[in-house]
Amino acid sequence: MTNQQQNRKIIIGIDPGTRVTGYGVISITGRDFMPLDFGCIRPPATLPLGERYAIIFNGLQKLLESYNPLEMAIETPFVHKNAQSAMKLGIAMGCALIVGKLKGLKVFGYSPREVKCAIVGTGKASKEQVQRSITNYLSLKSPPTPQDAADALAIAICHANSHSLLIPTKKEL
Amino acid sequence: MTNQQQNRKIIIGIDPGTRVTGYGVISITGRDFMPLDFGCIRPPATLPLGERYAIIFNGLQKLLESYNPLEMAIETPFVHKNAQSAMKLGIAMGCALIVGKLKGLKVFGYSPREVKCAIVGTGKASKEQVQRSITNYLSLKSPPTPQDAADALAIAICHANSHSLLIPTKKEL
Repeated sequence: MTNQQQNRKIIIGIDPGTRVTGYGVISITGRDFMPLDFGCIRPPATLPLGERYAIIFNGLQKLLESYNPLEMAIETPFVHKNAQSAMKLGIAMGCALIVGKLKGLKVFGYSPREVKCAIVGTGKASKEQVQRSITNYLSLKSPPTPQDAADALAIAICHANSHSLLIPTKKEL
Repeated sequence: MTNQQQNRKIIIGIDPGTRVTGYGVISITGRDFMPLDFGCIRPPATLPLGERYAIIFNGLQKLLESYNPLEMAIETPFVHKNAQSAMKLGIAMGCALIVGKLKGLKVFGYSPREVKCAIVGTGKASKEQVQRSITNYLSLKSPPTPQDAADALAIAICHANSHSLLIPTKKEL
């Protein structure tokens, strides 16, 4: 193993959702960020909810097997207007959390505001500003799509930066 | 395999919660209900949330391995006052749902009102009435404790009865 490989750290960011769960896997070596994989798990909306969660669970499990990340970062909205949709989102978060914990990963949670702060420097950043920052961080030629995959990459970058930033509410889940 | 074993059906009922997850495993042969196991999973409140969900997940997984139930029934509250607690409950529900789905079980959801209807005959039944019905159904000498385990047994009985009752919103999750 080279020194570079030894210092390499892989992080998976997840933006959980019942309809769309975005994921972004990045590799960090020193100050170099490299995207390894990003995309979305979209269980068919025609399936019963339980089957859809199983698809999210299995999809994330395969990603962990493929990339063997050291840590997982999940977006954890602080509030949600509707209790019913909060519960559905909670189930999707549970899928991600359990997949990570079963594999012995440390799992961290960040609010959308914390992610924006860590990526752009302000919690009020626009989607376009976040997109530009991600594109710069990962030296991409164009902004990553779809949106949920970009959000997941932002969460992973936020976590990677959290050691050097002051994120007071950063917490292990 | 005897005829009796062939006609035997095992159901697990789950009352999910972050602090306490109740479970009740019952065996049904014709009109005979028999309690196989009931109790609670109580992850230490001092652990991070993620560890607590992993304890719920692993605990339920062991129960499925031990009793090999055919179907799972989960209590699914229709509304919740607080979105934050709805999300936490959603994560606990997600643990139960995923454990069941990964083992290929059919998973069903019932609201507290549906459970009371199925057990006592009215959605406004008191806890004491529910307790008495469970005690009768399972031919127990005294009401099952703790409360969350009794609730889980009620959910399992509700599901076992659902084929012969009119539960309009009975749904596979």
